[in-house]
Amino acid sequence: MTAAAIALNTDVGEGFGVWGPTDEGALLDQVTAANVACGFHAGDPDILRRTCEASAARGVAIGAQVSYRDLAGFGRRFIDVPKATLVNELLYQMGALDVFARLAGSRVSYVKAHGALYNAAAHHTGHAAALVEAVTLFDPGLPLLCQSRTEVWSQAVAAGLRPLAEGFVDRAYTDEGLLVARSQPGALVTDPAEAARRALRMARTGTVTSLGGRTVRVAPDGGAVAALCVHSDTPGAVAIATVVRAELAAHGITTGPPEGAALAASPVGARS
Amino acid sequence: MTAAAIALNTDVGEGFGVWGPTDEGALLDQVTAANVACGFHAGDPDILRRTCEASAARGVAIGAQVSYRDLAGFGRRFIDVPKATLVNELLYQMGALDVFARLAGSRVSYVKAHGALYNAAAHHTGHAAALVEAVTLFDPGLPLLCQSRTEVWSQAVAAGLRPLAEGFVDRAYTDEGLLVARSQPGALVTDPAEAARRALRMARTGTVTSLGGRTVRVAPDGGAVAALCVHSDTPGAVAIATVVRAELAAHGITTGPPEGAALAASPVGARS
Amino acid sequence: MTAAAIALNTDVGEGFGVWGPTDEGALLDQVTAANVACGFHAGDPDILRRTCEASAARGVAIGAQVSYRDLAGFGRRFIDVPKATLVNELLYQMGALDVFARLAGSRVSYVKAHGALYNAAAHHTGHAAALVEAVTLFDPGLPLLCQSRTEVWSQAVAAGLRPLAEGFVDRAYTDEGLLVARSQPGALVTDPAEAARRALRMARTGTVTSLGGRTVRVAPDGGAVAALCVHSDTPGAVAIATVVRAELAAHGITTGPPEGAALAASPVGARS
Amino acid sequence: MTAAAIALNTDVGEGFGVWGPTDEGALLDQVTAANVACGFHAGDPDILRRTCEASAARGVAIGAQVSYRDLAGFGRRFIDVPKATLVNELLYQMGALDVFARLAGSRVSYVKAHGALYNAAAHHTGHAAALVEAVTLFDPGLPLLCQSRTEVWSQAVAAGLRPLAEGFVDRAYTDEGLLVARSQPGALVTDPAEAARRALRMARTGTVTSLGGRTVRVAPDGGAVAALCVHSDTPGAVAIATVVRAELAAHGITTGPPEGAALAASPVGARS
Repeated sequence: MTAAAIALNTDVGEGFGVWGPTDEGALLDQVTAANVACGFHAGDPDILRRTCEASAARGVAIGAQVSYRDLAGFGRRFIDVPKATLVNELLYQMGALDVFARLAGSRVSYVKAHGALYNAAAHHTGHAAALVEAVTLFDPGLPLLCQSRTEVWSQAVAAGLRPLAEGFVDRAYTDEGLLVARSQPGALVTDPAEAARRALRMARTGTVTSLGGRTVRVAPDGGAVAALCVHSDTPGAVAIATVVRAELAAHGITTGPPEGAALAASPVGARS
Repeated sequence: MTAAAIALNTDVGEGFGVWGPTDEGALLDQVTAANVACGFHAGDPDILRRTCEASAARGVAIGAQVSYRDLAGFGRRFIDVPKATLVNELLYQMGALDVFARLAGSRVSYVKAHGALYNAAAHHTGHAAALVEAVTLFDPGLPLLCQSRTEVWSQAVAAGLRPLAEGFVDRAYTDEGLLVARSQPGALVTDPAEAARRALRMARTGTVTSLGGRTVRVAPDGGAVAALCVHSDTPGAVAIATVVRAELAAHGITTGPPEGAALAASPVGARS
Repeated sequence: MTAAAIALNTDVGEGFGVWGPTDEGALLDQVTAANVACGFHAGDPDILRRTCEASAARGVAIGAQVSYRDLAGFGRRFIDVPKATLVNELLYQMGALDVFARLAGSRVSYVKAHGALYNAAAHHTGHAAALVEAVTLFDPGLPLLCQSRTEVWSQAVAAGLRPLAEGFVDRAYTDEGLLVARSQPGALVTDPAEAARRALRMARTGTVTSLGGRTVRVAPDGGAVAALCVHSDTPGAVAIATVVRAELAAHGITTGPPEGAALAASPVGARS
Repeated sequence: MTAAAIALNTDVGEGFGVWGPTDEGALLDQVTAANVACGFHAGDPDILRRTCEASAARGVAIGAQVSYRDLAGFGRRFIDVPKATLVNELLYQMGALDVFARLAGSRVSYVKAHGALYNAAAHHTGHAAALVEAVTLFDPGLPLLCQSRTEVWSQAVAAGLRPLAEGFVDRAYTDEGLLVARSQPGALVTDPAEAARRALRMARTGTVTSLGGRTVRVAPDGGAVAALCVHSDTPGAVAIATVVRAELAAHGITTGPPEGAALAASPVGARS
């Protein structure tokens, strides 16, 4: 089975103040979904606005890339925050970003956790629940990008949300289907052709070959991935995204906004 | 001329983390408009949520009490931030708060600047413009509480916004119609009866007697105030609000949400 | 065996900006060691200075109450920060506080971790090591207040530091010698007489009766505690500290600065 | 008159978390004084440590580049903070940095304000006084790099401090001796030869030609500059510093640590 349209996504807007981000236009030209930092691990209001405008101008879907509150650590450290507090922190981020998405004529049309929260939600019951609850309260129609076969996936399904199985085109997998840590040799896939082959296979069969040589499922049983991520900080990210997209297209697989995402916004000035 | 309904407002939700705020229910029982801190001078997501729920449960209008980014200084220090950045910082705050207002079944239905920004907007061309632009972009139908006869008032009128003239029942005025600094003797009005007399006069005639004994206008020519503020940190704030409200009622002046504010929210989950 | 002098300590300076702390003079009058917040979980430069002055003026030893970087969570949430980063964060806090201690004629004369870091250091190998390394780099002569029979205690001993075994006079213990969580019934000991009895026993025998009725050691084998903590936020903290001190004195046990702490500072202006 | 040794200085360590700084070794190889960010406008503890180590390893003097508390604005916005609070904020930064300087075998041996504070101190009485008071309290023997003929210069002289007159080799001057704003055409001097000519003249005569063609003094009457700054973010900064240094040397002017700065540290572990 092959997914009808793949959300080719990347992280954007991950600067703060004078610190970046650099021009992301070339990357935004290739992807179909922009995971926009919301201010808790990166992103200030100026950057949020610019990034939403740059995404919307290209018809790229805007996703809330929500995080632990951790500018100093870029959201890469697990924080043992109470579940109820995490729910509210996620809602705060979604609401703040949505203003800028709407000003740009779009809206927050999906959600994806960042960094340590993305990883924690795969197994941490409370934090997975917080993510699911925050999406449910904000807008239960929003797709949630996450890894299948994880805690957050199960909870999202149980809550009636729309989780979208995600694969990573530029990262090696362990035999258990987790990402090989960046510090390990072989963790990164930087050859565009190799990334494209992996992308095509995940989009067709929902599987990938692990660093140890095993076939690993990254999608629900019998399914394929609905989203493919290219990390914006992987060397050659623009080239990787370009070749991945072309390879998918060459095999009849289209890329587009996350399935179910509604991009059109009512004007901010007339929101109720 | 007497205003039809006065927005009796107070600042709430001005804690952070373990630091307050204390229970504000008694004060919320008396006012009709809650200026809710949005996280830049005070307020974390947990507090925003609790404060919106406590306000909405009482039918109290929720206003975005927007501020400079200044937790360490509680938004009381002027910051020479570029106008364009300030616009975005204000939008960020409004969007974040609006999520919690909507979750509570209400919405952000007016805007009021906090502290140093409130004061700066009275005379600083660029920051007054930022406030006006942010409200215009977020929702031009929202009332903006501010002092009449100021820079922000003029710009709001010119932009087609709905500024509401505000008086302070618990603060002395200078001969120029400004607030006497808290550090000066006589700056605070803590006697509820005296505060009520002043409130009634401002609501009827738009004037108040300055500390120097002069009659000062705090409303547009020929008009009266549309909002009266009781500071939540003034000693005896609950008693002051109670007596003020009763005194106004005894003279046929009702209190209510800011004129033009629409309180009913469409569900957050169905916002577009 | 009875310790020669007990460091009766409490947490102070735990406000931020407009948020507290309230006057801590009465409590500082009773204790002999002040755990001063350094700005990462609480404490801004104004508060650090005032707190150091208030402590030094009473001859109370100033300790660096170091924490994870977490103002929003008051340092009460575990953060999975890399060990090397944590070492540097702790050094930063110690250095900042030391300036104010020296300006007040004293110096940072001991170290105690705050909140989640205190708890983590009891079992987390890397974070215990970070605490030990930071003290070693800053001044290996400084006593480190911690619980005996823990990971950080062992590492401190191995590194040649001077750990001081600490007991809590206002908290119940589990059968395993850990503190009963505040959320549990019976977690707090608020009766001054009961607190004093527990304090005396810990100071004499190094043991305490757990909530489950067992005798638990809170000091090294054959030893007693060298420090007793009264939490400043326990109801009646001043009364508890007063009665504890009197009870110890009545039994010939003096209270004083942490053993080995040197209080006298060379002038800041002549520090090298 | 020619200064005996010029402090050729540059700003370093101005990243935060994942955001830079990039390798500054090549620049540190050319300068003799490193203005190290202390965490309030940039710089986290890891960066402070690395930057102090890189500076000390090259024998480059470490200066505390103190700032307003403003990570979001990189210290480039004036903040109307009370003088007493600013004093304490500056002391906090100096103390924090000094730990890392000492760990690297050096010490904070001079002070220089950053960004908006540097500019404000030139004319703002209270903030100039805060800078002077903070240096006096921390160590009155420390040189203070600032522009001559300014408010902070006068106050520093009056307080018995050692202000060092500073010129900028890569920036154009107005007729009034101020820096031409970066946004103006001609504000930057990026030709190394031209920068070197200007540096030599400032070091010999204390004068420079303004953008308007006038001769402007940037040093006290009859004197020359004691410090020359190359901004690390000026394009070609390494080349500029290299050529400036060579040009000065070719004319018998040595570069070195700020006059009066004592670089040798007593061990942190034996600081009192």
